[in-house]
Amino acid sequence: MHRYRSHTCAGLRTEHVGRNVRLSGWCHRIRDHGGLLFIDLRDHYGLTQCVVDPDSPAFALAETLRSEWVVKVDGEARLRPAGTENPDMPTGLVEVYVTDIEVLGPAAELPLPVFGDIDYPEETRLKYRFLDLRRERLHRNIMLRGKVVDSMRMRMKAAGFNEFQTPILTASSPEGARDFLVPSRIHPGKFYALPQAPQQYKQLLMMAGFDRYFQIAPCFRDEDPRADRLPGEFYQLDLEMSFVTQEDVFETMEPILTGIFEEFGGGRAVTKGWPRIPYAEAISKYGSDKPDLRNPLVMQDVSEHFRGSNFKVFARLLEDPANRIWAIPGPTGGQRTFCDRMNAWAQGEGQPGLGYILYFDRATDETTRQTDPNATGVGARGPIANNIGQERAEAIRQQLGLGAGDAAFFVAGDPAKFYKFAGAARTKVGVDLKLVDENRIALAWIVDFPMYEWNEDEKKVDFSHNPFSMPQGGLEALQSQDPLSLKAFQYDIACNGFEIASGGIRNHRPDAMVKAFEIAGYGEQTVIERFGGMYRAFQYGAPPHGGMAAGVDRIVMLLAGEQNLREVALFPMNQRAEDILMGAPSEVTTKQLRELGVRLNLPEKGA
Amino acid sequence: MHRYRSHTCAGLRTEHVGRNVRLSGWCHRIRDHGGLLFIDLRDHYGLTQCVVDPDSPAFALAETLRSEWVVKVDGEARLRPAGTENPDMPTGLVEVYVTDIEVLGPAAELPLPVFGDIDYPEETRLKYRFLDLRRERLHRNIMLRGKVVDSMRMRMKAAGFNEFQTPILTASSPEGARDFLVPSRIHPGKFYALPQAPQQYKQLLMMAGFDRYFQIAPCFRDEDPRADRLPGEFYQLDLEMSFVTQEDVFETMEPILTGIFEEFGGGRAVTKGWPRIPYAEAISKYGSDKPDLRNPLVMQDVSEHFRGSNFKVFARLLEDPANRIWAIPGPTGGQRTFCDRMNAWAQGEGQPGLGYILYFDRATDETTRQTDPNATGVGARGPIANNIGQERAEAIRQQLGLGAGDAAFFVAGDPAKFYKFAGAARTKVGVDLKLVDENRIALAWIVDFPMYEWNEDEKKVDFSHNPFSMPQGGLEALQSQDPLSLKAFQYDIACNGFEIASGGIRNHRPDAMVKAFEIAGYGEQTVIERFGGMYRAFQYGAPPHGGMAAGVDRIVMLLAGEQNLREVALFPMNQRAEDILMGAPSEVTTKQLRELGVRLNLPEKGA
Repeated sequence: MHRYRSHTCAGLRTEHVGRNVRLSGWCHRIRDHGGLLFIDLRDHYGLTQCVVDPDSPAFALAETLRSEWVVKVDGEARLRPAGTENPDMPTGLVEVYVTDIEVLGPAAELPLPVFGDIDYPEETRLKYRFLDLRRERLHRNIMLRGKVVDSMRMRMKAAGFNEFQTPILTASSPEGARDFLVPSRIHPGKFYALPQAPQQYKQLLMMAGFDRYFQIAPCFRDEDPRADRLPGEFYQLDLEMSFVTQEDVFETMEPILTGIFEEFGGGRAVTKGWPRIPYAEAISKYGSDKPDLRNPLVMQDVSEHFRGSNFKVFARLLEDPANRIWAIPGPTGGQRTFCDRMNAWAQGEGQPGLGYILYFDRATDETTRQTDPNATGVGARGPIANNIGQERAEAIRQQLGLGAGDAAFFVAGDPAKFYKFAGAARTKVGVDLKLVDENRIALAWIVDFPMYEWNEDEKKVDFSHNPFSMPQGGLEALQSQDPLSLKAFQYDIACNGFEIASGGIRNHRPDAMVKAFEIAGYGEQTVIERFGGMYRAFQYGAPPHGGMAAGVDRIVMLLAGEQNLREVALFPMNQRAEDILMGAPSEVTTKQLRELGVRLNLPEKGA
Repeated sequence: MHRYRSHTCAGLRTEHVGRNVRLSGWCHRIRDHGGLLFIDLRDHYGLTQCVVDPDSPAFALAETLRSEWVVKVDGEARLRPAGTENPDMPTGLVEVYVTDIEVLGPAAELPLPVFGDIDYPEETRLKYRFLDLRRERLHRNIMLRGKVVDSMRMRMKAAGFNEFQTPILTASSPEGARDFLVPSRIHPGKFYALPQAPQQYKQLLMMAGFDRYFQIAPCFRDEDPRADRLPGEFYQLDLEMSFVTQEDVFETMEPILTGIFEEFGGGRAVTKGWPRIPYAEAISKYGSDKPDLRNPLVMQDVSEHFRGSNFKVFARLLEDPANRIWAIPGPTGGQRTFCDRMNAWAQGEGQPGLGYILYFDRATDETTRQTDPNATGVGARGPIANNIGQERAEAIRQQLGLGAGDAAFFVAGDPAKFYKFAGAARTKVGVDLKLVDENRIALAWIVDFPMYEWNEDEKKVDFSHNPFSMPQGGLEALQSQDPLSLKAFQYDIACNGFEIASGGIRNHRPDAMVKAFEIAGYGEQTVIERFGGMYRAFQYGAPPHGGMAAGVDRIVMLLAGEQNLREVALFPMNQRAEDILMGAPSEVTTKQLRELGVRLNLPEKGA
């Protein structure tokens, strides 16, 4: 018999009854039933109930076992006594009648129990991650993560992509965040950078003639802690294709990602035929370039109904042509308590408030009936309705498709400044009115991102996203159009309110690249200095190419139904970018620093 | 029709004749046959011959094309004229009669041609890696690498392993080489380290209850340039298993690696049933712990034949019991010119020389026949034979199984000091006598490595390999045996003279771990400081576990038949650890350094 096990802890069935078996695993739960000891023995694969009775030669040792001790047990597989079967467990019809036990790894008092669902502070969980990972939920999440990655690989390969490993010790990459630097010992005074993404390398792979690249790529950004990013490192499904248009990328990747979400989405309905929403439309309808389309609410511009009205605040705002009034429909939200709650929420968000109109059925409305018992139709109520009058309020209702019992909320001003708040209000209304369909995974392509944006601080034109994207219209558009009107072949994937992927068709023409950088105020010299490898490659026969990168951690988080990326990462750092299990970062010796040609230069205390 | 291609450059066959097709790719080779232009258009998938005749509207443009321009061509697929077919090419029966050309990416004068096999200096090849990668050999090597990695993954999963990604920004790992350090901006004065291997994390995964881990793991070592290592980063097939003995690791991994070598070995015979060679035996038979077993030569201890002999140099050496005489057999090497060449080679290696005996057939030997025309049997000749006499020389011949026409070479002294040279001499004799079977992939497990070794410089006992290995005999052996006699459950895989993998059964008992470190002169406090995360984990229920790591780059190099690891890596650094394509390492700004809490501390010029 094997030194440690004849079966895993998930392996025994009624067919094994009567056989001598050997299991190894952790003492998940130990119960003492009147002298009879029950040990649920756990390994990666499952649980098996082991029984030690006082007559067993192993009984004395069994009494000393505690939770999470690792033991090897020998015994006979038996049917569980009638009435004690557990049909929910794969091994629930049998148990092991233990005759011998060997302690393989005892355990000290646990700082964190493995059995049970009690919440523990994150610092404890991270310090004892090896215990936390034994717990069912985290174990399941991590196994899910592995399956998702495997499925991504399998689907990418089936679509003709080849996997490549790009360098991790490299030069600064142009993603715009801060690089992690690595001092070079052999070249004192010089530094490697860890890649924020393999952007330049994947483009170089296309220059090198490899037609379809992908990688489950580790990426590194030295950012201040953010709730929606893992500190330090994260993983992307990174890909690039040659001789493609934007449409080819969509047609290739939409089925792959739909397939992933269907395979692991736990039965949630996944969007078929993803809508393609231009950036400007996403902003005006949803107030976000990563809208949650499970939320059915669509905002509308209702400026015309307020122009020249008696609601002077809005009417005066509209005298500035930059200003607009947007409405957020609130179906079933037509109660004053709800609207007041939304108003208070908006004030908590730093806004002056959230104007609204309540719509009601005049025929059943008590107040109306007191003055007009024969009233019919839908009435409007609230400060705004009182100011603009029933006719304008009714026109708004009709535009928004609302009815009695519904509400409309209004956000006013310069959309460039208020759209994020409007989007948050749309989310809040949708969530609080329970309009968001939790049983869906709602996906969309967000397209036509602007190529440039106005940097008000520096009074200059900046790239709005990736400087390597091809502008729509190419070099000619760069030469002839207002840069701020230019759209790029650049796209995101929005999923349930998260940006899960981003990509573009690249600018593969050196002349167009130089022109694109010139518009953002950079000379050819800057291009050569910052992106020399890629710029050089463009000179020697560059194919049209494009691709994208999808966030592996975030996709797994959505699939697992978790709210926190650290629940789907194996050994994440805490929010202060520390690995408190391994003790990183840590101090190093002066000798190490001297070898690297650096010394410490710490900020003064209290500075 | 698609914007760029209806087919790839490998897609056209006779069934497409008569169709209008569109291809995109690189102008691999352009030939002008009396006005008729032939363009071999190349993409990732293959080559297609395109023909432009002077009547084509595309002719004028075609005349401007140069090597490596990226073009799109439209035209009609035709049969090649009889007699011009190329049956060696998948598209060799057809050609495209071009009617339209679009230049997608022109190319400047090439620093490195893609077509042809001319060797170029490595600096040029690395600076223009994107061009070098277009060349057939490198393209094929990189694609092979991808296929090998895919196959490793597939085979590991089929064996029940799950893939996990362990952190790259982490704490110093205990592999013994120098860490790359990453300054922490958020914690000035502290540093992350890049993992030399995921050793601690994979053991933590076992503590966490994941039964079988593997990873195609990037590893980082800040070493001085070595011919047999990629500078900076390299990849391992890293794996770990719980509840296993050494035998389980062998039984699991031997078929997987045999399968890889058979799948990609190009028909070379792969060892079935790998021999298991104890470390001490490998040293004494082959002078190496990574013997090339394609070389059939086995060294033997022939000390007894020299003890008390008239060959005083050896006889006197043997008065010191630490000294031995080893013989390297040299079948077919029994010519004085060959033996003198070996002797000269040894002197070039810094040795006093390489003693030898030549064996000859007395019946056919001219010199012998002159004195004894009826002589028979095998005679021995040369300075050593003359000193020790025919009888002892004959005994040596019989021990080594040599015959007439063969030679024996001798290495003398303290084997601990000479074994590496003896191994090199064995290799040299085997190679020069063409005894090495190039058509084999010869694999073996090297087992029973010593747990400790004597550090003569510091006059202390050191770990000889991995401090985390379980000593054979466990805690009891640590407590009772001479440390230098202890063997570890530690093993390597040798393949054609390279170490391609290394592993061990781990010491999972904290008490044994503390004892093992104590023997090497470290207190428990050191263990806690250096390996705190893992040591802590051992306290809370540690399963027996073990594993190994195989060098992906080296395996691919052996499979590709390359001599240099850079020929199987995508974007390798040069031997000065520079990425001259991307310009890494590079200088950074003072602002970046200040943010990281460091400043430069460069060695003084001329120091």
